[in-house]
Amino acid sequence: MLYPTPIAKLIDSFSKLPGIGIKTATRLAFYTIGMSDDDVNEFAKNLLAAKRELSYCSICGNLTDEDPCAICQDESRDQTTILIVEDSRDVSAMENIQEYHGLYHVLHGLISPMNGIGPDDINLKSLITRLMDSEVEEVIVATNATADGEATSMYISRVLKPAGIKVTRLARGLAVGSDIEYADEVTLLRAIENRTEL
Amino acid sequence: MLYPTPIAKLIDSFSKLPGIGIKTATRLAFYTIGMSDDDVNEFAKNLLAAKRELSYCSICGNLTDEDPCAICQDESRDQTTILIVEDSRDVSAMENIQEYHGLYHVLHGLISPMNGIGPDDINLKSLITRLMDSEVEEVIVATNATADGEATSMYISRVLKPAGIKVTRLARGLAVGSDIEYADEVTLLRAIENRTEL
Ligand SMILES: [Zn+2]
Ligand SMILES: [Zn+2]
Repeated sequence: MLYPTPIAKLIDSFSKLPGIGIKTATRLAFYTIGMSDDDVNEFAKNLLAAKRELSYCSICGNLTDEDPCAICQDESRDQTTILIVEDSRDVSAMENIQEYHGLYHVLHGLISPMNGIGPDDINLKSLITRLMDSEVEEVIVATNATADGEATSMYISRVLKPAGIKVTRLARGLAVGSDIEYADEVTLLRAIENRTEL
Repeated sequence: MLYPTPIAKLIDSFSKLPGIGIKTATRLAFYTIGMSDDDVNEFAKNLLAAKRELSYCSICGNLTDEDPCAICQDESRDQTTILIVEDSRDVSAMENIQEYHGLYHVLHGLISPMNGIGPDDINLKSLITRLMDSEVEEVIVATNATADGEATSMYISRVLKPAGIKVTRLARGLAVGSDIEYADEVTLLRAIENRTEL
């Protein structure tokens, strides 16, 4: 298509996003041009701010705009339990049901034998360090109910159990093959209530 | 969901785009944070540049980064024909097939009696002004084959024909590569009416 350079470039930027093909990118770019100056300025500002102000918590690995993150800083939370998730969206999903009051650890990935991703390729070493001399009594593995989620869960259990830490996982209330971030609140609630020991 | 402010704001910006729900906006925002600094800076820059540098051609209404647009400036194009489209994307689609070499006029909308959009609400007045003392002999109405497209097409024909200007519209018929069994009745009707000799 023959577009003026500024819109061609904007289409290019939109099409770099996941699941956005060239037609959708074109539609979004044209829509953007019709938006108010304020909304477009805000959009650009938010892009830069998100990239600049967000980082990963040096303790738990959660996405945060302060370090340590608000959860790690909160001494009223149960310091004896750590819930392990794949990414920060899972932390938000869990916080949203207001049922879990312990700490988190964000893996930024899952062990995936099929894809050659091992324990050293995800944020696991820092969990072991964290558990030394800590008050943690229970680790709840809340990885997705997928093959990689299972592999990760089994690995964590194998490593932590000999150290005398109780390792549980979310109950199989989660539909097999589904993602935690899309689970409805009741399912998540049941899943955490019925967590089972590994 | 409880996200740090910078990502909540970015999710909000993404969700203002058409067809982007809250889940997709969240996915896109998280993806953006994982992109390189360069790509995010480029994205923000392109948003601002598209909004700042693009305007509508004062002659034809096409989206452009110079005024008049490259097409209106090009004296080698056929000055006796104007093709009327709903928006700038249609200009690009037409230019892409490299078959039409005349001028354009972009309406930025269609007459829509159902939605209370009349001739004065779209870029039509400037077309009439443009046709006065021009060399234009034929106006091709290339609006969509929808009720609003038809209404717009009929209005333009009614206004221009008395001025001695030839008004045509794109042929109606089966889409190339489409199956007869899936064509709607009106399309089939037009296709048989407008049949051509082999
Ligand atoms: Zn933290
Ligand atoms: Zn023009």
